[in-house]
Amino acid sequence: MSRIAVKPTLQPELFVYSFPVRVYFENTDAGGVVYHGEYFKFLERARTEWLRAKGYDQHELAQRHGVVFVVRSISLEFLRPARIDEELGATVTLAAIDAATIEVVQRIERGGECLLTAEVKLACVKIAAFQPARIPRELRDVIVG
Amino acid sequence: MSRIAVKPTLQPELFVYSFPVRVYFENTDAGGVVYHGEYFKFLERARTEWLRAKGYDQHELAQRHGVVFVVRSISLEFLRPARIDEELGATVTLAAIDAATIEVVQRIERGGECLLTAEVKLACVKIAAFQPARIPRELRDVIVG
Amino acid sequence: MSRIAVKPTLQPELFVYSFPVRVYFENTDAGGVVYHGEYFKFLERARTEWLRAKGYDQHELAQRHGVVFVVRSISLEFLRPARIDEELGATVTLAAIDAATIEVVQRIERGGECLLTAEVKLACVKIAAFQPARIPRELRDVIVG
Amino acid sequence: MSRIAVKPTLQPELFVYSFPVRVYFENTDAGGVVYHGEYFKFLERARTEWLRAKGYDQHELAQRHGVVFVVRSISLEFLRPARIDEELGATVTLAAIDAATIEVVQRIERGGECLLTAEVKLACVKIAAFQPARIPRELRDVIVG
Repeated sequence: MSRIAVKPTLQPELFVYSFPVRVYFENTDAGGVVYHGEYFKFLERARTEWLRAKGYDQHELAQRHGVVFVVRSISLEFLRPARIDEELGATVTLAAIDAATIEVVQRIERGGECLLTAEVKLACVKIAAFQPARIPRELRDVIVG
Repeated sequence: MSRIAVKPTLQPELFVYSFPVRVYFENTDAGGVVYHGEYFKFLERARTEWLRAKGYDQHELAQRHGVVFVVRSISLEFLRPARIDEELGATVTLAAIDAATIEVVQRIERGGECLLTAEVKLACVKIAAFQPARIPRELRDVIVG
Repeated sequence: MSRIAVKPTLQPELFVYSFPVRVYFENTDAGGVVYHGEYFKFLERARTEWLRAKGYDQHELAQRHGVVFVVRSISLEFLRPARIDEELGATVTLAAIDAATIEVVQRIERGGECLLTAEVKLACVKIAAFQPARIPRELRDVIVG
Repeated sequence: MSRIAVKPTLQPELFVYSFPVRVYFENTDAGGVVYHGEYFKFLERARTEWLRAKGYDQHELAQRHGVVFVVRSISLEFLRPARIDEELGATVTLAAIDAATIEVVQRIERGGECLLTAEVKLACVKIAAFQPARIPRELRDVIVG
């Protein structure tokens, strides 16, 4: 299957999915800011909720389709630190999708300020075996649609 | 200051504070269930939000009063496992309070089912020095009140 | 099977298993000290290495015996904070064992100083089902022996 | 200060710093493999020990020089999953250094097999303020040397 470019929109900012994330002590380190590895979790929560908003949770993907999405690559740019008690937003924007992979661009924001940008490539794989699998057609349709 | 027993109520269950917690991959382990150490985080999120609902966040406690609450002791009973995608509730009930410590009883619940019980003793300490400090009077009033 | 009291020794301190744990940024929080939930991990690493030193790792327990140990209850007393870069020791001492459960007492130490004490009750359960299972006899023998 | 290319060697593999990392339950997720966010921690442990082997720990950098290294960007490629009980190696190779930043290339390995590659850019910043700072000369000398 050929790669499908995601259709552009005139006002893309209206379609950015954002999920709220509160910073607790568990997320901070002795530097007084959010530990850099915690952003991985924030980004994944947002991707999970983005899929859930489309009708798919991890349990359903596993039980009904026998697949799970795994991170193939991730590139993060850290622009500003976040601190305890802050409420952040983690965004998800689809960048590309083909038969077995999804690419998303994500941001961590605080108010209008961007704290971190991420490019994430996810692969659909068979549970346990971790072999590449086609993205279920109906899921693909709702992601692109 | 003498220890103050928290006043009983006829319908205590009406006053139980509960905070929702969603289970993500970050919280699970290879056993397929929530990693036992993650419950510490769920319990702390609930205590933090319980204080925030009373008008106090960690930043304010630190900046305005120069104190922070630290865990002195915690006892957990694990009754049932939780799994990916589940939405749990983490409760907080005040059990006792004196000049410098707070004791709370907490539960992790799934629907009406109790997954975990916790008894937590928190001490109010001066920031950085970690020496015992009196709980700020106004905070104490809203906690007991 | 009746509960077996672990045989006392004249110099018990010679038999305390201790596993080294280094404190990294990942383990600290904005209070400048080790986040309290991290101690769970330190304690589990020590228990895992204590079993491994007896010839059993998690993979073998799962694959060969179809069981895993889960935490049933844990009580922690926090005595002193630990900080970045410190090298701690996490000890394990068997307190009791019966057909399906093990009780251990653990400490986190820094030099000769005790930072935390823990009482942990572990249950042997069947993989996935999480139903109580007998501790494999040969494992039981090496634990007690 | 101009950017200094790190001098090539005929047998670079002899100079690769590698730090052992054991996989515990704390590092795994319900997919049965190491949770992708945990690799951040493994990579940071290796960088921290690499600096410590050169005579610098985080505490000394903070107390004596008033600086800390923060991650500015990181790119990870995930090649193969790791599992419970495995002993991995996390490598660190200096790629470039200038007045205020360090670039390292890292790998997570299992035996001779590469599980993950990482490119990490670290910035030296003033503690608390998080403003760019020059890398202390003596530290720079030992890193390049």
